[in-house]
Amino acid sequence: MSSNPPLTADPIFETDFIKEMTRQMRALDSYGINDNKSAAALLAAYVLTKEDRSKLPIVGDPDEETLARVKAFYNAIAVLIEKECRLMAVPLVHLSHEGFGRALVTVGKLVVVDRTLRDVHRFGFDSLSKMKTEADKLLSVAIEIIGTYPEVAGL
Amino acid sequence: MSSNPPLTADPIFETDFIKEMTRQMRALDSYGINDNKSAAALLAAYVLTKEDRSKLPIVGDPDEETLARVKAFYNAIAVLIEKECRLMAVPLVHLSHEGFGRALVTVGKLVVVDRTLRDVHRFGFDSLSKMKTEADKLLSVAIEIIGTYPEVAGL
Repeated sequence: MSSNPPLTADPIFETDFIKEMTRQMRALDSYGINDNKSAAALLAAYVLTKEDRSKLPIVGDPDEETLARVKAFYNAIAVLIEKECRLMAVPLVHLSHEGFGRALVTVGKLVVVDRTLRDVHRFGFDSLSKMKTEADKLLSVAIEIIGTYPEVAGL
Repeated sequence: MSSNPPLTADPIFETDFIKEMTRQMRALDSYGINDNKSAAALLAAYVLTKEDRSKLPIVGDPDEETLARVKAFYNAIAVLIEKECRLMAVPLVHLSHEGFGRALVTVGKLVVVDRTLRDVHRFGFDSLSKMKTEADKLLSVAIEIIGTYPEVAGL
């Protein structure tokens, strides 16, 4: 019943990060409207090509759906950090106005992810593979800092 | 020209915290509507007696003004931390819905204040002196953790 079987055959859909992202997107879908959608279809909104971007306004307020996508991304990062370090990782996405803000993940008293967010209404990646690369980067930096300051992470 | 001179004679208005709170409240007042108000009058909204509280609904969405007050409180804490430790302290107040949320202050990669917020629409203190006590407590805990992990605070 999958809507795009050729896409889901991509090995990226077997990675922990993409699996978690899919889980996050299904969790957001409280009414099960997208139950029949494949992982690729669920995550399609994260992929913004150059052309897609050029159609978006330079400045804009992010809508609820975009905001939910940004949160789902950092939630997934937090879940992966938690799996790796076995300590609770708490995500916090904070927007002030016009899509400016800050995304944090804390473990104990340690800030393990700290990103300034800009132009959140244009949040997206060139491809799912680019999104995964970004997530892997955030994850490895987080795990490294936890390894260096385990005592602070354990507070 | 002060509107309540007897109140401002209280030595609490000479403390760093209350001076900073007053500065925060004046900063919020972009149009200078309250320029003639005394510090006591500016901070009056932070004082909620038991009776005041009983008049507020149990559950409610905080209005913009209350939210601004909560932010000003944690901004002031961050300024005082910064003064004491000479490192940048970044406050972050995040509300989800119905006044639930989290207030953080980070210094480098260290979380030095971490408060769960509840019932923000009822945010207030029995007296200014109680507010100062609370601030002093947050400040001393923050300075202590920075002293214990200066390396993480310096990241």
